[in-house]
Order: sequence, then C-alpha cells, then structure tokens
Amino acid sequence: MIWQHNSELDAIHHVAIEVDDVKEAIDWYADKFRCKVAYEDDTWALLQFGNLSIALVTRGEHPAHIGFVTETAAEHGELKTHRDGTRSIYLADPAGNAVELLDADSVKSAVTS
Amino acid sequence: MIWQHNSELDAIHHVAIEVDDVKEAIDWYADKFRCKVAYEDDTWALLQFGNLSIALVTRGEHPAHIGFVTETAAEHGELKTHRDGTRSIYLADPAGNAVELLDADSVKSAVTS
Repeated sequence: MIWQHNSELDAIHHVAIEVDDVKEAIDWYADKFRCKVAYEDDTWALLQFGNLSIALVTRGEHPAHIGFVTETAAEHGELKTHRDGTRSIYLADPAGNAVELLDADSVKSAVTS
Repeated sequence: MIWQHNSELDAIHHVAIEVDDVKEAIDWYADKFRCKVAYEDDTWALLQFGNLSIALVTRGEHPAHIGFVTETAAEHGELKTHRDGTRSIYLADPAGNAVELLDADSVKSAVTS
C-alpha cells in the first residue's frame, strides 16, 4: 500500500489544517474516521491516524502546514526544540505554503522515549 | 513510529496543496526531501513519500484537500470513479476544508493491480 513507510523515502509526520472550532472539528472527523484524539485544548487538537497525525488548529493561533521528517533539517537553519522533544525549523515553499522540517533523530527519540 | 500503518486506524492517502508553478514546486520539494515524482503535468504533480503522497495542484485547477481512506465512504453519497480506479466523494468539514473520502477497497485494488 502506498501509505506504508518506505525507508528510502522521507515521511510526513503530521498535517495541520485550520478550523474554526476545535471541538466541533474533532467531532466531525471522529464521526467519519477511525482515529484517536492524542491531544486537545481550545486552540488545537491532534488526531492520530494509521500513518500520520492531523492537527486541527484554530486560525491565528497556529499556521496550517505539513511536517516532514528529514535527516537534513539542520542544514536549513537553527532548529527549535518543542515540548515533545522534536526539533524542527519552518520554511515557506515557493507558493508560500508553510513547511515544517522535523529532525529525524529527534522524532525517533520522542516516539520511543 | 507514529507514521507506520496501524490497521485499527484509518489512513491518509494523500494531501493536496496549492502551488503557483508545478515545476518550481517539484524542484523545491525534491531538493529538500527524498521523494519520487509519480506524476507530473502543467496543472498538478504527485510526489510519493514514505507513508503517503503529496499532490501539488495549481490554484483554480484542483482544490487543496486531504484524502482519507475509509470503508464507509459510500455512506456519504455516490462515489466518483477516477482514472486510477479509486472511488471517492468530496465533503467539506465544518470549517470549509475539502475532505476526500476514498473507498478502501478501491484503493487496495488500484495499488495492487
């Protein structure tokens, strides 16, 4: 299946999309899909799916973006360390889409610790 | 790893984001990430990553969306069959985000045939 992890290719860690109401959005997605609510507060939530997570973020609080796992994140600038131990940097693609590059080692450590 | 396929949870098949210039976008993503260009024309491209695909779509030609694989797609209305054999229906979430529900059986057939 195309969404299975292939170690020769980089993986997508999460996708963040903007919503108006976090609770309303959780209910909508959880009603239609088999997913787990991994985190939830008034400003954002994290839904775990089989092959990655979807972040539901309120407009203005967090930017919509795609988070890629790569071994070369640090080549693009200083990485910021997040609460969960992952380290990343944000870039904008040529069209202005926000792209998060997560350091591969930090993601492995965060998941296994 | 969080992005590995877990059969108890539904999977994300692809994420489509809007770009201004398909060729420019392909070059940008392929320069930063290990991915394969699975399809490319002037209006859109499909980049295969380890756990799902990213579609780069030109504004106005295709809507930005997330494509979920689910066994219950047909419960939401009549499915449309695409050239690759997948069958799906588009919905809008409460915030207006475009969400594609792909029939799980059609995805398995399309990938293995």
